[in-house]
Amino acid sequence: MIDELIDRLLKGDKRAAARLITLVENDEEKAKEIIKKIYKFTGNAYVVGITGPPGAGKSTLLDKLIKEVRKEGKVVGVVAIDPTSPFTGGALLGDRIRMQKHSTDPGVFIRSMATRGSLGGLAKATNDAIKVLDAYGCDVIFVETVGVGQIEVDIVKTADTVVLITVPGLGDDIQAIKAGLMEIADIFVVNKGDKEDADRTLFELELMLDLEKEKWKQRGWRPPIIKTVALTNKGISELWRAIMEHKAFLDESGKIKEKRRFKAEEEVKTIISDFITSKVGKKLRDNEVYELIGKIAEREIDPYSAAEVIMEKTLGVKA
Amino acid sequence: MIDELIDRLLKGDKRAAARLITLVENDEEKAKEIIKKIYKFTGNAYVVGITGPPGAGKSTLLDKLIKEVRKEGKVVGVVAIDPTSPFTGGALLGDRIRMQKHSTDPGVFIRSMATRGSLGGLAKATNDAIKVLDAYGCDVIFVETVGVGQIEVDIVKTADTVVLITVPGLGDDIQAIKAGLMEIADIFVVNKGDKEDADRTLFELELMLDLEKEKWKQRGWRPPIIKTVALTNKGISELWRAIMEHKAFLDESGKIKEKRRFKAEEEVKTIISDFITSKVGKKLRDNEVYELIGKIAEREIDPYSAAEVIMEKTLGVKA
Repeated sequence: MIDELIDRLLKGDKRAAARLITLVENDEEKAKEIIKKIYKFTGNAYVVGITGPPGAGKSTLLDKLIKEVRKEGKVVGVVAIDPTSPFTGGALLGDRIRMQKHSTDPGVFIRSMATRGSLGGLAKATNDAIKVLDAYGCDVIFVETVGVGQIEVDIVKTADTVVLITVPGLGDDIQAIKAGLMEIADIFVVNKGDKEDADRTLFELELMLDLEKEKWKQRGWRPPIIKTVALTNKGISELWRAIMEHKAFLDESGKIKEKRRFKAEEEVKTIISDFITSKVGKKLRDNEVYELIGKIAEREIDPYSAAEVIMEKTLGVKA
Repeated sequence: MIDELIDRLLKGDKRAAARLITLVENDEEKAKEIIKKIYKFTGNAYVVGITGPPGAGKSTLLDKLIKEVRKEGKVVGVVAIDPTSPFTGGALLGDRIRMQKHSTDPGVFIRSMATRGSLGGLAKATNDAIKVLDAYGCDVIFVETVGVGQIEVDIVKTADTVVLITVPGLGDDIQAIKAGLMEIADIFVVNKGDKEDADRTLFELELMLDLEKEKWKQRGWRPPIIKTVALTNKGISELWRAIMEHKAFLDESGKIKEKRRFKAEEEVKTIISDFITSKVGKKLRDNEVYELIGKIAEREIDPYSAAEVIMEKTLGVKA
């Protein structure tokens, strides 16, 4: 069945792609088999991470960006990561439904990933879904996550180009960017640029970037700041141009190799950590392990010492 | 040095507690040593998870809740998990500074954890910080996380009582709660209850809970919904009472044992997964491993096959 699905995937069958993503998302063993088989057909897609706070208009912007990329005849994939949260989840759902209008376009494939499930599983499922879309023939794959949550940020960090979307009127945000996502953004977007305080946000971002002049010089790339009004399509082609400029920079400087290596490292760590967690998880009901965990709860043994014993018993690994 | 710090911790020395939390946060080996030594002095604190969207007023509410608990003379700990995000980070920072007024009260200990750092590290660091505060003598420990992000939700899930804070006017949120955090909440709070649409939010939540009557019956606990106005202290004592009622329910039904076992299981999995990731991470620059990862990036080997080889080489574990 999997071989047949892969055959169809490579011929550009959208339903086969959807089926395969469902399989990699839900079945450890099949995920492994599928990725092993399709991996040699991947590596052509350029992966763009889109991140930002709830309410920044990420989905509307992405909607317009898809149209822009489609003008060039490129095939577009979107992996949208639903936050587990009830709060942003709702709004995003609405946006996603709006995005589904692209669903009749064979050159656009949109998929939402759930954040529920086991620890770490989200990162692996996202990596695998990207590969299916890559093999399907996507030229560009957008990975959309909310810029909150450790795993969510780790996922977007492995994209070739990371676009950070902010909006005016978020108060203390500029201050905090320094500490947080600034490090991973290749392009800043100030969306809702028609708001009256948009220019102030832009100015503050510029000032902030000015503080790190040395770093940008060393890196050879200073993140541009792009003002957009997604609703009226303003700034969208500039944003797409900036993404392509960053791609050209990575290609010409050879930095794309570093990026790809980093991605491969993160991926191997994720696969191993997921495998281990799943293997340990399956043994939690085994007699000895079960008793030992009971003893942690009873304060008869500390969790580290118990983990050492369990690790040796279930994996044969010594601490 | 560690023994001396632990001595002081057990005597209720706040600065020793702070130092020890910094150590467990930053040093794998010391974390292990510290937890092994203090574990037998833990297990007295009751852990309450506070989660909700940015802007729900979590910190203000927590601020009032601390005062309420202090009235009973109980010692309070807070572990606040800073989202990596620039967006919510800013606002929370302001709130945290406000909370720091408790810092002259020896019966209140507040600590923020960073979400930066390696995958998984946050959950372990939070678990360990809770233990330090437990040994310090905290009767109640609040763990505050934003209700977005897989790890952040996983962390709050291991609390004894989980309080989910929502506010009116978040649109589609109620709809999405069903799919997400509803499963883990023991108590719902509608904060900013003086807003005009507060009653509608309350009503919708009640309706939603009504759909699951069977589940609550089986479980023996139906999550109450509490209306608060944190700014004016309204509903705060009701909320504290509800938390204590849930505690009594867990104690009397024996369900506290299940909770503690679940927590111990999650903790063991986290410790093992962190250990493995760190061990693999340290070998990434070893010749053979380095080359293999290069081959992934070059599409000469797929990440799963490479991970299998690396796992066997670095851990001796076969897939």
